[in-house]
Amino acid sequence: MLTDLEIAKQCNLKPMEEIADELNLNRDYLEQYGKNKAKISLEVMDDIKDHADGNLILVTSINPTPAGEGKSTVTVGLAQSMKQLGHSVSCCLREPSLGPVMGIKGGAAGGGYSQVVPMEEINLHFTGDIHAITAANNALSAFIDNHIFQGNALQIDQRRITWKRVVDLNDRALRQVVVGLGGVKQGIPREDGFNITVASEIMAILCLAENYQDLKERLNRIIIGYSTSNEPVTVKDLNVGGALTLLLKEAFKPNLVQTLEGVPAFIHGGPFANIAHGCNSVVATKMASKLTDYVVTEAGFGADLGAEKFLNIKARTAHLDPKIVVIVATIRALKMHGGVDKADLSNENIPALMEGLKNLKKHTETIEAFNVPFVIAINKFTADTEAEIATLTKWCEKHQFKVALTDVWAQGGQGGLDLAKAVVQTIANEKANFKPLYSLDESLKEKITIVAKTVYGAKDVEFSSEALEQLDTLTKQGLGHLAVCMAKTQYSLSDDPVKLGRPEDFTVTIRECRPSVGAGFIVCLTGDVLTMPGLPKEPAALKMDIDEDQGAIGLF
Amino acid sequence: MLTDLEIAKQCNLKPMEEIADELNLNRDYLEQYGKNKAKISLEVMDDIKDHADGNLILVTSINPTPAGEGKSTVTVGLAQSMKQLGHSVSCCLREPSLGPVMGIKGGAAGGGYSQVVPMEEINLHFTGDIHAITAANNALSAFIDNHIFQGNALQIDQRRITWKRVVDLNDRALRQVVVGLGGVKQGIPREDGFNITVASEIMAILCLAENYQDLKERLNRIIIGYSTSNEPVTVKDLNVGGALTLLLKEAFKPNLVQTLEGVPAFIHGGPFANIAHGCNSVVATKMASKLTDYVVTEAGFGADLGAEKFLNIKARTAHLDPKIVVIVATIRALKMHGGVDKADLSNENIPALMEGLKNLKKHTETIEAFNVPFVIAINKFTADTEAEIATLTKWCEKHQFKVALTDVWAQGGQGGLDLAKAVVQTIANEKANFKPLYSLDESLKEKITIVAKTVYGAKDVEFSSEALEQLDTLTKQGLGHLAVCMAKTQYSLSDDPVKLGRPEDFTVTIRECRPSVGAGFIVCLTGDVLTMPGLPKEPAALKMDIDEDQGAIGLF
Repeated sequence: MLTDLEIAKQCNLKPMEEIADELNLNRDYLEQYGKNKAKISLEVMDDIKDHADGNLILVTSINPTPAGEGKSTVTVGLAQSMKQLGHSVSCCLREPSLGPVMGIKGGAAGGGYSQVVPMEEINLHFTGDIHAITAANNALSAFIDNHIFQGNALQIDQRRITWKRVVDLNDRALRQVVVGLGGVKQGIPREDGFNITVASEIMAILCLAENYQDLKERLNRIIIGYSTSNEPVTVKDLNVGGALTLLLKEAFKPNLVQTLEGVPAFIHGGPFANIAHGCNSVVATKMASKLTDYVVTEAGFGADLGAEKFLNIKARTAHLDPKIVVIVATIRALKMHGGVDKADLSNENIPALMEGLKNLKKHTETIEAFNVPFVIAINKFTADTEAEIATLTKWCEKHQFKVALTDVWAQGGQGGLDLAKAVVQTIANEKANFKPLYSLDESLKEKITIVAKTVYGAKDVEFSSEALEQLDTLTKQGLGHLAVCMAKTQYSLSDDPVKLGRPEDFTVTIRECRPSVGAGFIVCLTGDVLTMPGLPKEPAALKMDIDEDQGAIGLF
Repeated sequence: MLTDLEIAKQCNLKPMEEIADELNLNRDYLEQYGKNKAKISLEVMDDIKDHADGNLILVTSINPTPAGEGKSTVTVGLAQSMKQLGHSVSCCLREPSLGPVMGIKGGAAGGGYSQVVPMEEINLHFTGDIHAITAANNALSAFIDNHIFQGNALQIDQRRITWKRVVDLNDRALRQVVVGLGGVKQGIPREDGFNITVASEIMAILCLAENYQDLKERLNRIIIGYSTSNEPVTVKDLNVGGALTLLLKEAFKPNLVQTLEGVPAFIHGGPFANIAHGCNSVVATKMASKLTDYVVTEAGFGADLGAEKFLNIKARTAHLDPKIVVIVATIRALKMHGGVDKADLSNENIPALMEGLKNLKKHTETIEAFNVPFVIAINKFTADTEAEIATLTKWCEKHQFKVALTDVWAQGGQGGLDLAKAVVQTIANEKANFKPLYSLDESLKEKITIVAKTVYGAKDVEFSSEALEQLDTLTKQGLGHLAVCMAKTQYSLSDDPVKLGRPEDFTVTIRECRPSVGAGFIVCLTGDVLTMPGLPKEPAALKMDIDEDQGAIGLF
């Protein structure tokens, strides 16, 4: 069997000009980055602003398990299927972070015959967007420490600096550090820490900003910490919003590549789906929507995290109107939610499958709560038995859920035609009437409670005394109107990662609340949330190399 | 008067295809990065390997002063002048580091009418090479800490890790840090520090490697620290040489841009000229040399640092044959070397000028010691008086030095025609017979002494007991055959930055010696050498922004 990289290398990529033609995009707006990647100038938006909006399709999934769901693969595959059916279609994905690529994942560009290409370039540096965000984030840190060093006119309290440095790597040794050591010429010693770049507020901002002006205003609103009198200190106070905007000038332009079957793919931005909102950029989604009739996009982790935030944060902010949600599940993962060990997933197990379907059921209820129709996509694995598939189909019939078996990993677009047809028909026949789950006018506490109860199925929400105090302060500071961005384990509907399936009677604990004012939300942390992953004992990097033809080895 | 950025924005840039045509470079080898930048595939080297080598012209200068010498400007201007004279010519420069751009310098792409463009993109991120080096450098750090965390099979002594992390910023708070805090799950606490990326050994390696295989072998040779039994631990031992090579795959390809007058400019690599060798990449220089009859390149700081290393390290390693050296001086800077305060530089001062000429004289002797002819370029400033210029010209005549007054900042190529003619004539009439100053077979101590005495004019060299011990150990480890890379203040011929002019009777102190085995040299530190600059009270970044047309503001 061919690896993803081998399949990707066999692909005869179309010149980027042809991909632009596919979009009816004037080639002058294309800014080529290497042979097979391009950025698109935002100036195009003036030209196409009167185009009708394409139909926005959100791909989400059940709670992820080590068994794998293949959400990116289905996203790419579905777009290819729709193209095969003759539709005008594009897909919008997030950019892979180098950390996971070098760590466990080895790549994040779909899989099999449903990949975006050139996968090795997308996985490594791509067009440099994440590096630009790293530079902007760390330039801000340098400006903060320099401001204190040079006299600290703003009276920044070095014990209350909340802005952290970042690297786009998995590097646990940087989680907690002390900087500024070495005496009077080196700065002021203080505690600090590094996040992975995709967890930076700047990444979230880049993904939510509408245009350069909005980008700058959002950057200026970032709270970097507090003064000795406990007042918020912002980027604007430091007078570096312009410089940060300039550093992000190129990174803010959407990137265009293609899928293995030549579907235009906008890959832009990649915020974490725990402490950020986990969706690709608003500018890319809007551009795609003005250029094709259908836009297939995805959001991080399961529907309880990525889809919730796509709908409550991204779609609300950007006035997007999602027409349908595709919920991806695999029989393997459903069995795992039903209590089967990873080692036994290849054995038929109908009772476990039935039990695991409760997880899927909860996510369908969530999407219904947003008033958006959905289709269930069963992403096929070879070990799935006929009886298991029949059980699942029957379950869907019983609930009157639309469902389609897909095999886009092995067959590319050909493997997702049923799904594509179901999606197109549903959009045509069932009018979505999307509305966010909560109004921004409600209190922060109320917003959190609505998400926890409606989306997670929690019985109750508990706030730590710290969180209560923070919510109170944030509200007094005039930030009560912001959205809430929940940071929760992706493995469970609850805040306890070992509770698979559909946990009941549980309470969600809000431990801490942090303002991401530039992004426009309050991050609400439940349990420990990792914002800097570590490397495994045998990182994927150990297998990476270049071959004699200067090709990549070891990405998958 | 227009700023550099305003001048640059007025330029009608030629499409990169035309720049390729100018080089007779098959357009298929061009990998566009944005509208006006490109990388060139190294595969072109097979096609052009039988071309004759172009004449290599090295631009260096007197010891830099705050008065400014304009070495990059003269490099670009000279290439433009040669083009105006009808020659086939290109220039090879280093990539600007974001740290100084955001800090004091605000940009580093030549000046006035002798710039490389698009200057704002060259100054900010460019094609991402430096970011890729940052990523590779810090990935290696993460691999080291992860190796220790996961059991430390190589018995790395965390007190003896010499490999540092990097950011491409001026950030003094990162000079000395403690990482790995937070308990058993976060790593092993240890002292660490960050250098600016351009001081990374990986930057030096990228600039000295001949091809991908050499790149990988050099990366594998990097010593990251020592084991508990004090044996060197290398990248090869960690088994990540392949991954680092893969991370540098695109960064290793030379970048092509243009000057304001359309001269092809290869801008690639940018190692510090103190703890590294301060020249652009070997692959870019060799490619340029196969594509044009004349190649104008530069090396960092004055002739005592950049040119010495260009000749003893880069030219030797890469078997380059420099035909001529241009020594840039300004009357202002010479007066400063003659003892004039910065505030008084606009006043005519012949005695100070005569005194300052001793600095220039020393550098001419250095170039003569390498058996390469030279031309002196006086980079004109408006305050220069006729009497001063006449004094200088007469001084040159007395010594039979070729000299040309240039005004390329204000006039572009038109301002350097005399210099260009002098350069071309000298190459035609005076045969260079370049040889490095020392043989690699000599002892490290001897090599250091030769550079200190011949290039700096030192009376003697003193070695700290630490340095003596290190040289002894390095020799025993079989590294005695490496070149020496002197890390010295750029402001003085001596190791004391306040000794301007031509200091005499001084002793150079070698404080510490560090192996850069991948780069192929032993770094010899004299005095304190800054490998992480700090930001000034008012960083250049405070003036940076984007305008309504999405153009850059505040670069200069």
